[in-house]
Amino acid sequence: MTRFNPYLLEEKEYPIAVLVERFNQMRAEGRDVVNLTIGDPQDDAFPLVIKKLKEVIAPARRFGYPRGIGSKSYLESVKTWAKHSYDIDIEPDTEVISCNGTKEAIFSVPLAFDWSGGKEIFIPSLSYPVYEASARTLNIPIKMLPLSEAGNFLPDLDSISPEEWRRCGLFWLNSPHNPTTAVAGKEYFAKLLELAEKYDFMLCSDECYNELYYGSAKPVSAMDFHESRRWIVFRSLSKRSHMTGFRCGAIISKNKEVIKMLSRMRQAMGVGTPSFIQEAAREAWLDENHCVAMRESYLKKRDIILAALKKQGFHVFGAEAGFYLWVSHPSLDTSDAISDWFIAAGMLITPGTAFGSDGEGFARIVYCLTDNACYDVAARIESHTTP
Amino acid sequence: MTRFNPYLLEEKEYPIAVLVERFNQMRAEGRDVVNLTIGDPQDDAFPLVIKKLKEVIAPARRFGYPRGIGSKSYLESVKTWAKHSYDIDIEPDTEVISCNGTKEAIFSVPLAFDWSGGKEIFIPSLSYPVYEASARTLNIPIKMLPLSEAGNFLPDLDSISPEEWRRCGLFWLNSPHNPTTAVAGKEYFAKLLELAEKYDFMLCSDECYNELYYGSAKPVSAMDFHESRRWIVFRSLSKRSHMTGFRCGAIISKNKEVIKMLSRMRQAMGVGTPSFIQEAAREAWLDENHCVAMRESYLKKRDIILAALKKQGFHVFGAEAGFYLWVSHPSLDTSDAISDWFIAAGMLITPGTAFGSDGEGFARIVYCLTDNACYDVAARIESHTTP
Repeated sequence: MTRFNPYLLEEKEYPIAVLVERFNQMRAEGRDVVNLTIGDPQDDAFPLVIKKLKEVIAPARRFGYPRGIGSKSYLESVKTWAKHSYDIDIEPDTEVISCNGTKEAIFSVPLAFDWSGGKEIFIPSLSYPVYEASARTLNIPIKMLPLSEAGNFLPDLDSISPEEWRRCGLFWLNSPHNPTTAVAGKEYFAKLLELAEKYDFMLCSDECYNELYYGSAKPVSAMDFHESRRWIVFRSLSKRSHMTGFRCGAIISKNKEVIKMLSRMRQAMGVGTPSFIQEAAREAWLDENHCVAMRESYLKKRDIILAALKKQGFHVFGAEAGFYLWVSHPSLDTSDAISDWFIAAGMLITPGTAFGSDGEGFARIVYCLTDNACYDVAARIESHTTP
Repeated sequence: MTRFNPYLLEEKEYPIAVLVERFNQMRAEGRDVVNLTIGDPQDDAFPLVIKKLKEVIAPARRFGYPRGIGSKSYLESVKTWAKHSYDIDIEPDTEVISCNGTKEAIFSVPLAFDWSGGKEIFIPSLSYPVYEASARTLNIPIKMLPLSEAGNFLPDLDSISPEEWRRCGLFWLNSPHNPTTAVAGKEYFAKLLELAEKYDFMLCSDECYNELYYGSAKPVSAMDFHESRRWIVFRSLSKRSHMTGFRCGAIISKNKEVIKMLSRMRQAMGVGTPSFIQEAAREAWLDENHCVAMRESYLKKRDIILAALKKQGFHVFGAEAGFYLWVSHPSLDTSDAISDWFIAAGMLITPGTAFGSDGEGFARIVYCLTDNACYDVAARIESHTTP
């Protein structure tokens, strides 16, 4: 048939597409512009992963079908990492599954549940776009939870009525948060998991930035709640070990029934990760030193750009985790005005409105750049006319 | 919530699980048994792919996010292959998308369409299990099309009423067919594509065995119908180039609207293939010689086992394509009886009933084995008591 999923037929507005066009035009005109919109680390991947990849491939003549839910040794490496990082015991056979990066895992997880009763997926109003794209593609109702600076860019749990909570099926939380860098504390998680127990929903905790933090304390993870059976955690090596190109992550839950259902579903889905990637990726899960070094490296990059932004009067929210800066300016009251200022200074950044209308007045700048690129960005910011 | 997708909750019977248990038990008892149930080629992958993979990785310090729909050079290589193989012009920007092996592409393709009008997915009664698992997981109604030896194990298109055709949304065809090796001819495809035009459905043509054939003529592909906008073709390098472990394939259609909708959907799904795999896989699409050699190799393997089967009075259907033998025997009237005979002879094979009740009286034997393993299988067959 030629009748398509109605969601795919929507002609969406992509504010970023307009900017990219402008960017390309400026480049074509010979202007020197840098792109600060893409969260793809420019520094090296964790070298031991590439070393191991070479070793695994060197003698190989063939590779057979990978185990769809992850090889036993890959799952063991995630267990070891979880024990070391959160002092939690994860059973590799029943509490963890591999994924081809968390994007595919996030997209498909709602499909494991029963939505016939009219339950909804709760999504913060500024979010990684895949939460919404997944729900809409699967035709599952969404409840958008407003975010604001006054509320530290976390959904206000108290503003949700018992009647609303009863409709919640899955609740997406992303802490540290893209794009705002907001971090949910221990009490916030505890309250949310209590609500999940009371109203029978699952917390989907997208923690792909969790190991990039610059204060003294590691951001709270759902995995800190050893006893709860109400969370599904999504962890990725993309940011943690600069492995965006490897498509490698893990789905973890102490709810064995959830993992069992996801295993059944995912074995038919063909999302097994090539075995040579799984073998190489073990190196990343089993090493913490490179994460310590990476945090030091990002702290330096952040501070280079932060200092320049402050000189020009920009306000920067949070910035204690992840590799984004969520900026506003008293003289630039819209996202477009901020974006225009940066374009004029030779930089493409993402207007906050690209993430949702609650992003108005803000913009996102990436700093997962090389050190030299960070110095260049700082120079561009400092040398431009003050807003 | 803890209410799961009802399909996932079904406790299915896995006839093969019982056999595997028996197999493992025999192994544990020290008996020498070989496994002939898995369609994972045991010979080497196309060597230039592994060579290229090494070359791509050798200087690399990082790999960024892959392009979700396939790199331009990967899609160009599929275009070149299609022109050479089917003399068809495929536009790489609008008529082809990469996939992580065809399994994931097959699972998700129905999601791009609108099922609210009650349309059904037509599936042959003996099929690759993913067609059904996908439809059932997505809660889309199925119409099972009976297969029989009298009908050459192809769905009887004439037995389907206009009323039934009007309910058809997608029609799965797998030619050459797993498990029976049935091959649909040019007239069959032509008729099916005419029906698709008349009744507004899409033919989903799973052609992963298409380049493994042992007669003089290459099996017909939907791609032989250059003018039709009614097919979506799924092609894989898993069997063609022994690349099951690479998870690499292509979705092709001359219906640009279908490809556009699949592109939109798949970019949110996170199914981009790692760039180093795409680069290596180009070598496979751009070479035909290794396919010629592979056909010669499989023809030899087939004949080694076929001769032994015939000596024992087995009847073998088709066997002109793919790498399976679909066998029956006048003295063994059930799939279980065939399976028992093979177990007694030290071989685990798949009873036809594992693919559906229309498989009763048949069993499937793989011959994607090394030559030595084929000689061993033949010896086991010949030396066992005649049924």
